[in-house]
Amino acid sequence: MQKLKQDEWKTLSSEYLFRRPWLTVRKDSYELPDGRAIPEYYILEYPDWVNTLAVTKDKKFVFVSQYRPGLKRNDYELCAGVSEKSDKNMEAAARRELLEETGYGGGHWREYMVVSANPSTTNNLTHCFLAEDVELVGKTHLDATEDVRVHLLNLDEVRELLVSGAVKQATHLAPLWKYFAENRLL
Amino acid sequence: MQKLKQDEWKTLSSEYLFRRPWLTVRKDSYELPDGRAIPEYYILEYPDWVNTLAVTKDKKFVFVSQYRPGLKRNDYELCAGVSEKSDKNMEAAARRELLEETGYGGGHWREYMVVSANPSTTNNLTHCFLAEDVELVGKTHLDATEDVRVHLLNLDEVRELLVSGAVKQATHLAPLWKYFAENRLL
Repeated sequence: MQKLKQDEWKTLSSEYLFRRPWLTVRKDSYELPDGRAIPEYYILEYPDWVNTLAVTKDKKFVFVSQYRPGLKRNDYELCAGVSEKSDKNMEAAARRELLEETGYGGGHWREYMVVSANPSTTNNLTHCFLAEDVELVGKTHLDATEDVRVHLLNLDEVRELLVSGAVKQATHLAPLWKYFAENRLL
Repeated sequence: MQKLKQDEWKTLSSEYLFRRPWLTVRKDSYELPDGRAIPEYYILEYPDWVNTLAVTKDKKFVFVSQYRPGLKRNDYELCAGVSEKSDKNMEAAARRELLEETGYGGGHWREYMVVSANPSTTNNLTHCFLAEDVELVGKTHLDATEDVRVHLLNLDEVRELLVSGAVKQATHLAPLWKYFAENRLL
């Protein structure tokens, strides 16, 4: 398979238009390899994100639901969050989020895949973890504005969510469908 | 499986901070069902996006690659784009993008899944199509700033891309892994 030519665009200028805790907008201007100019291009800067496909010892899948203002709806989702400077690494961030939002922890963890919500406009990656044999180890500790419900689903319920299209978050659907493909669960 | 309670947040105020062709930022303030306030929440407004898992009559997968400034790299991707007001529907938008970027068309199309790049902050959906038996029907017509390369990959090459993690775009990985799960290709 052809190795891709990594011809980066030349940055002619770069400025921050907007810097708030939850939104950082950078305006760049670029010159393409062939000399064409792109005077106005917006990059959204975020810390890396994490999510976890967590399965309990008795083969229940740990899902959450919360209101999402972008789509103005609640959907079933994996437990997910934003990495913090205090997190030793991405797995630590994912373990912290799972414990805070669901009370589950322990088990065997591995980075399952690394995805991007949008490589053209966002500068961060989402690290997706697979956590097997997790157990209820603590109480949930939600942030001030979080209202997260926890749902323990069996395999048939997760399959129904995927096949019916009830899960919408692409960074969660990628690891979920990968898990179904690897384990031939469809 | 529990039907999710759709308790919407109450919008207390909403204003546009930024409106450019490629970036629209809305600042909302919300009141949660329990009365808690979120004074500052940013929504990114976009038209719906489309992408297409296109397979030729001789079972080649139509991929593209282009430089992505968010991640500062080129990756293998599905053909994707933004719906336009002139598109009769989402399939028409996806067919237009596939023809413009790759020259491929025809074949049998169906909406394969509908995903969101980020339900918490983006208001749009990505409509993913599965197009089978497409053929080379025209010349590519790229936008002024597009520099898209077309790659016809066989199944083994696509599997290698997925298993190695070379594809990063979550809205493309979701339909690709669904396709591998449905057809038991792993």
